[in-house]
Amino acid sequence: MIQTPLYKRFAASLDKLLADEGKHATTPAVTRGLTVALSGGVDSVVLLHLCRHYVQAHTHLTLQAIYVDHGLSPNSAQWRAFCQAQCDALAVDFTPASVKVVAQSRQSLEAQARTARYQALDTHAYPHHALVLGQHADDQVETFLLRLKRGSGLKGLGAMHARTVLPSGRVCLRPLLTCLRADIEAFAHTFGISHIEDESNLSDRFDRNFLRNQVLPLLKSRFSGFVPSVMRSVELLQGQQALLDEITQADLAYCSNENSLCIERLGGFTLLRQQNLVRAWLAEQGVQMPSHKQLEQILGQALNARADAQMAVTLPQGQVRRFRGALYWVIEQPAWRENHDIGQTPVVLDDTHVLQVQQGKGVRMPAPDEQVSVRFNCLSEKIKPLGRSGRNTLKHWLKDYGVPTWERSRVPLIYYNDELVQVVGFFVNEAYASSQGLNWKLEDARNTKDR
Amino acid sequence: MIQTPLYKRFAASLDKLLADEGKHATTPAVTRGLTVALSGGVDSVVLLHLCRHYVQAHTHLTLQAIYVDHGLSPNSAQWRAFCQAQCDALAVDFTPASVKVVAQSRQSLEAQARTARYQALDTHAYPHHALVLGQHADDQVETFLLRLKRGSGLKGLGAMHARTVLPSGRVCLRPLLTCLRADIEAFAHTFGISHIEDESNLSDRFDRNFLRNQVLPLLKSRFSGFVPSVMRSVELLQGQQALLDEITQADLAYCSNENSLCIERLGGFTLLRQQNLVRAWLAEQGVQMPSHKQLEQILGQALNARADAQMAVTLPQGQVRRFRGALYWVIEQPAWRENHDIGQTPVVLDDTHVLQVQQGKGVRMPAPDEQVSVRFNCLSEKIKPLGRSGRNTLKHWLKDYGVPTWERSRVPLIYYNDELVQVVGFFVNEAYASSQGLNWKLEDARNTKDR
Repeated sequence: MIQTPLYKRFAASLDKLLADEGKHATTPAVTRGLTVALSGGVDSVVLLHLCRHYVQAHTHLTLQAIYVDHGLSPNSAQWRAFCQAQCDALAVDFTPASVKVVAQSRQSLEAQARTARYQALDTHAYPHHALVLGQHADDQVETFLLRLKRGSGLKGLGAMHARTVLPSGRVCLRPLLTCLRADIEAFAHTFGISHIEDESNLSDRFDRNFLRNQVLPLLKSRFSGFVPSVMRSVELLQGQQALLDEITQADLAYCSNENSLCIERLGGFTLLRQQNLVRAWLAEQGVQMPSHKQLEQILGQALNARADAQMAVTLPQGQVRRFRGALYWVIEQPAWRENHDIGQTPVVLDDTHVLQVQQGKGVRMPAPDEQVSVRFNCLSEKIKPLGRSGRNTLKHWLKDYGVPTWERSRVPLIYYNDELVQVVGFFVNEAYASSQGLNWKLEDARNTKDR
Repeated sequence: MIQTPLYKRFAASLDKLLADEGKHATTPAVTRGLTVALSGGVDSVVLLHLCRHYVQAHTHLTLQAIYVDHGLSPNSAQWRAFCQAQCDALAVDFTPASVKVVAQSRQSLEAQARTARYQALDTHAYPHHALVLGQHADDQVETFLLRLKRGSGLKGLGAMHARTVLPSGRVCLRPLLTCLRADIEAFAHTFGISHIEDESNLSDRFDRNFLRNQVLPLLKSRFSGFVPSVMRSVELLQGQQALLDEITQADLAYCSNENSLCIERLGGFTLLRQQNLVRAWLAEQGVQMPSHKQLEQILGQALNARADAQMAVTLPQGQVRRFRGALYWVIEQPAWRENHDIGQTPVVLDDTHVLQVQQGKGVRMPAPDEQVSVRFNCLSEKIKPLGRSGRNTLKHWLKDYGVPTWERSRVPLIYYNDELVQVVGFFVNEAYASSQGLNWKLEDARNTKDR
């Protein structure tokens, strides 16, 4: 079995994938074993056999197989028993798992089943095991065509990668990804490897099955090398996407400062590169796929308007604003309410923000007839900060302290009666300053609760 | 007719294409008219009608149609007559052209016919006319699938562009590229536009026809938006390719100096970007598609070897060499032969190089008993250049003058008997220097002939 071209191809791929594990900064280098996603179909049963030979040659690796019951077929108990028997015969640890998938539409059923399957595999796989999946070249071509019929770009048409990482950090490897379905089936035949037939594969209800049963046979009948050609295209697209990702990250690192984007540096690039950069920057802020028109608006206003002009481009989830030569992504925050007579007790502003007061350097204690309150947004209030020369409006001082316009309404203002005594986070009123008084601070409510 | 969605889409596309003409630096902004490539098929006849309406609304544009007879169909004379009649009825200038295509294989017949067709269109189109071609969205999808079955990457899968430029500088526009075949056929039907049926379109002999007649109907029957989806993918891929081209050009401009590539700057990039850069640089030198292994070799040797180590990576057409911190593409040149007793006559070294002699500042006249000869490669010869201190080997001096190793054997050396008197292009032997003597120069033989 280990002398077959299929095993050699599989083993070379897995060798490389496991060797590369050490090079990925985001995941630990240790892979202690392989966990095969075993459905009982020919691909996964062949994969199980291949993996078993592999771990015999790599004795530091343990082997596990997981069968996930989707609850979608009346035969699933039978399939589970089949998988159990296979594993018993090969002395491989077997773990059955089951998930519930509620069909909502044809599209989402497939997507939901996939998500649930990966979650179950992740949950039941042994720690430090890599999930090993049986997807092969014909699956890859189907994925490509499915992405194509959705109008995907470079990234989507790059289809499946031989290595992906689940949100938990679990590594998924696809060592059969360059192998043809026919070669896997021939291997099963040669070695008398029994497997089950999922009756749903024969139905064209799923788009993937339609492609597998109708379209691919037609294309392969005319173009004998169709699958390897698409694999070559996919490999090239993946390489070009990786290159573009690297460049985009470099451009972003060059232009961004924390969450903002430096307009001067952005302006040094060509138009297409600016658009790519703004798109990547917005994606980092959690904004997916702004329209071409929105990009044009953002760049037009950012680069062409007067440096001191206000700018705001509104997208569904928030706004792109400009402040001091940089772009910011601003999500409108609900206003905080005034609170009167707060004394020295903490004030919960919202789920995540609490106003705390501590004794120490700050403003003098309030007199018994002075009511303490917190207000917001009184930007025309005049005040002389401690240690600064001159009296001026709060708006002036907040600008001076570099507070972006959209954040100014969220600066808590502490009043003794109608006198502004502390601008929280920035300064105290000189006339009220005291080295042994009170000091208000904005804190994360979640940390406060933990204490 | 001009109220139809098809005309509006066509006109909007053509408006934009013609408006953009002014923005392309490489081609002149003037488009004086449109030349329709007219085959007599439904696409091109509809295109002719659309263009005729367009020029009626844009009276500065003239209109021409060209029929290209490929000599591949027994019906071609009939088709030409049909096209002629169409043009006569619409009062459009008609130009018949014919090309000879010799069938060599199924693949090359299509490719040859295409090349010959474009050449004929270019030759017969009026000056300053843009060629207008009838390719539509269904053609685009076929092209995409043809490229896919060849394993193309980003550039190839970008398929056809709405605007291309022929080697002559002739602009080709495809204003129907986003229109569906069905809409074009419906338009012809609605307005009773007659056209011919090319009987070869029905045969699956050509891969394109196989896709058109077999594959696309199947895909469209299942996925109603298949063609628009692929159009969207193609548009995204074209945009991503354009972005990558821009970045590559910027990286290349940053790293290259004339034809060489600065190793230090190259080394500042990430690996994928280095590979992309070397690939682009080699393409500029006329080297297409080095293998991944060759790229690794070039980068490995360039970046990791000692700065003074010799480096040569051999590709089929030449070598990548390193000299003074830069990479050079070196094509081996045939050695030049020694010539004895040349006197003061020019010496033809090869088709493009001739050694000329002029009177003036240089080396003194030869004495009657001194035989003048030109030799090469005598690098261990010792010499003291005029104005330099010390006597040293020719190798030392050429290195000192910054002549790359591989160019040193092509420096002509002028001897009087066995004394080296001039190193052509660099210096003269101080002992032979004269302000009224002879000076040898290497010149381009083609310029010399023109004189």
